[in-house]
Amino acid sequence: MRERTAMCADAVTPKTIFDALKLDASGLVAAVVQNDKTGQVLMVGYMNREALEITLRERRACFWSRSRQKLWRKGESSGNVLNVVEVRTDCDNDAILLKCDPVGPTCHTNETSCFYRTVGDDGSLALRGDGVATE
Amino acid sequence: MRERTAMCADAVTPKTIFDALKLDASGLVAAVVQNDKTGQVLMVGYMNREALEITLRERRACFWSRSRQKLWRKGESSGNVLNVVEVRTDCDNDAILLKCDPVGPTCHTNETSCFYRTVGDDGSLALRGDGVATE
Repeated sequence: MRERTAMCADAVTPKTIFDALKLDASGLVAAVVQNDKTGQVLMVGYMNREALEITLRERRACFWSRSRQKLWRKGESSGNVLNVVEVRTDCDNDAILLKCDPVGPTCHTNETSCFYRTVGDDGSLALRGDGVATE
Repeated sequence: MRERTAMCADAVTPKTIFDALKLDASGLVAAVVQNDKTGQVLMVGYMNREALEITLRERRACFWSRSRQKLWRKGESSGNVLNVVEVRTDCDNDAILLKCDPVGPTCHTNETSCFYRTVGDDGSLALRGDGVATE
């Protein structure tokens, strides 16, 4: 039974993430960035194949900027790069998790994490960040 | 200066997440689920406005299933619901973070997290989950 499962798995399991990746209609997957040491979720970005290849090769997070429609090496202007410790994929291969060692704040507002606001039951927004957010 | 910043913030800051939310072309935002106690990232789902309203009201995670094109109350068939402890939004209001107290495994494979496989530098996949994944 164990052998049969292994054989079946070998027959159907893709060998690499690039065989398995399920891109959306825009050719992208969501990528969650988590601080490897503290566990804090820092940001969500999007990746196309090239951004993922670059991330794996350079061990620094690279995304596809949906607003600018170009590759975005995180920190290329700010210096606040995300050094990649571990990359994971989910059960559907349509989301990526990057466990990172961040240099500086991740958010462009200078907050440690982009998720610096809480949402109340009624949808109300409240600041819960480092207190330096400007927007 | 402090007063002026506060006034400006009052003038431009949306009062609720529903004013602020930036949906993609499909009317969705990504929602990251994190175990509130352990910090483990459990899954990524997508939400439309209604899924977010339901999540906030019922304090249980509800998503929009992109594959089935319908609302998906997580755990409605498996019983493995995600009780919501805290909801956060990101700087762009195009991603949501749900800090949850999960009942049972989150992944349909019975893994604790959907992110049970690591990706090597060459893109190779390796199991790093609880060892019960069937696919």
